[in-house]
Amino acid sequence: MSEPTLLVLDADPPPRLGRLAGRARVLHADASTLAEQLPLADVLLVWDFSSQAVRHAWPGPGPRPRWVHTASAGADHLLCPELVASDTVVTNARGIFDRPIAEYVAGLVLAFAKDLPGSLELQRERRWKHRETERVAGTRACVVGSGPIGQAIAATLTALGVHTAVVGRTARAGVHGQDDLDRLLAGADWVVSVAPLTSSTRGMFSARRFDLMRPSARFINVGRGQLVVEADLVDALSRRSIAGAALDVFEEEPLPSDSPLWGVPGLLVSPHMSGDTVGWRDALGEQFVEFFELWAAGKPLPNVIDKSRGYVPG
Amino acid sequence: MSEPTLLVLDADPPPRLGRLAGRARVLHADASTLAEQLPLADVLLVWDFSSQAVRHAWPGPGPRPRWVHTASAGADHLLCPELVASDTVVTNARGIFDRPIAEYVAGLVLAFAKDLPGSLELQRERRWKHRETERVAGTRACVVGSGPIGQAIAATLTALGVHTAVVGRTARAGVHGQDDLDRLLAGADWVVSVAPLTSSTRGMFSARRFDLMRPSARFINVGRGQLVVEADLVDALSRRSIAGAALDVFEEEPLPSDSPLWGVPGLLVSPHMSGDTVGWRDALGEQFVEFFELWAAGKPLPNVIDKSRGYVPG
Repeated sequence: MSEPTLLVLDADPPPRLGRLAGRARVLHADASTLAEQLPLADVLLVWDFSSQAVRHAWPGPGPRPRWVHTASAGADHLLCPELVASDTVVTNARGIFDRPIAEYVAGLVLAFAKDLPGSLELQRERRWKHRETERVAGTRACVVGSGPIGQAIAATLTALGVHTAVVGRTARAGVHGQDDLDRLLAGADWVVSVAPLTSSTRGMFSARRFDLMRPSARFINVGRGQLVVEADLVDALSRRSIAGAALDVFEEEPLPSDSPLWGVPGLLVSPHMSGDTVGWRDALGEQFVEFFELWAAGKPLPNVIDKSRGYVPG
Repeated sequence: MSEPTLLVLDADPPPRLGRLAGRARVLHADASTLAEQLPLADVLLVWDFSSQAVRHAWPGPGPRPRWVHTASAGADHLLCPELVASDTVVTNARGIFDRPIAEYVAGLVLAFAKDLPGSLELQRERRWKHRETERVAGTRACVVGSGPIGQAIAATLTALGVHTAVVGRTARAGVHGQDDLDRLLAGADWVVSVAPLTSSTRGMFSARRFDLMRPSARFINVGRGQLVVEADLVDALSRRSIAGAALDVFEEEPLPSDSPLWGVPGLLVSPHMSGDTVGWRDALGEQFVEFFELWAAGKPLPNVIDKSRGYVPG
């Protein structure tokens, strides 16, 4: 077989691809050139997870890559109906973000329990104000999303003594199905949103579900912004229907500087960074090179997404 | 035996002591009346751990209580030479603060690793600024203090995947001795100070030891303020000899509003609250009542401090 053509959708060149020298012809595209270059590609590497360019370019004319890899856990940004219906295999970066995101969520849980934001605020005011804090051990968490990231979050919270339930699309060993979701939300001190974004999860955290939660509950979203109806969350916080929230992902990213979300009391905002530990780009590049070598050798690819569901099945 | 006299040194009446009605005559004292009431007491309950009143009143004339209990982990605030030399038994609140402080330290470690203070600062400025964060799993911690709080901290950090060494006064199973301290400090990403305050630990974290630490290290003090030479810590932070620090305890408490410590870049200040979870006062009161019942029945007391060392031996 002649050298396959690898098309990379990215702003900056990904690390580690130099290792494919002599084994692939590497082309680059951005949102404006993707449509014209797509027919040339055997493989598409979607490096920029925030781009919607694949959705827009894929339905056009001409041949399409046989394999698309996204350097992200979610695949919602590329799964247009035409790609879903095609024979193209889609893989993701499952495995890279699990532990970092689990640590990030544990950090948020402890920060809420120990009122670290309050301490930082009081420090700025140079005020010594003792408060009683919360014990994390013995509390209850509901992790919505049963993929490897959700499982890693559950393992980390469990290690801290938190009684943790995981909810997925369908029940299986160690995972609750959708039927249990509302009951588990109602009993949780911590609700963690890390489900894949699909037609059935979009907007799942709306007023009805916030109203189910305990007034002392905190809600944490490290999945996708569109899982949450942001206006309903703001309303739930202002009515004190829940006690606090942390969003690392948003309907619109970057969050515009004039968004009201920046200033909502009880809401912590961070810039979609929960999984991005030092070296994350290298790890993503290495994972892709490893997958490329399997693909070039005709071996089965790991992390194949069930395109009709939108994620790698458990 | 007639009803014993229990003298309580406190600002507010402790909870749960009502359960001793009919079994003890309860008197109260403050710093100004302790000296005159001390000869009347069979038992002294030191409820206010921040008071130095026992040190001042104990050396005076007259009989002394046979048992002193402090509702704190540390006993440094009462161990004057005359009390150390006496036959009086001193007990502490060992066991109440272990898990809460361990969670608090884990929260600080994760907050540093995930730059939560930076995210809160950027949120106030309404700035979306992605940063790479640190993985906690695989890092190294050195916990200085091998009592139950130090052990709980080590267990919690270990559960998060941190390689954790504990240093005590003398080596024993699972605990390094003083000979290993400098070497362990030099290799640690996290240094946690939770040693008892004694003549040999006072000021142990001074310029020499901060200079041993890694430039990326963070230092956390949840023991006693006097373990640290605060000016040396400020200097180490300003020279970037270490990367950050969190102090929950201080040479002077409450920390005066004009203290420079409030404004040192990279230093998190909190008001001696790491162990104080909701219900802590009840737990301390219950523990004392339980000990009182043992004492009144002539049974051995738990948590007896080795007064010459200043803590309950491991």
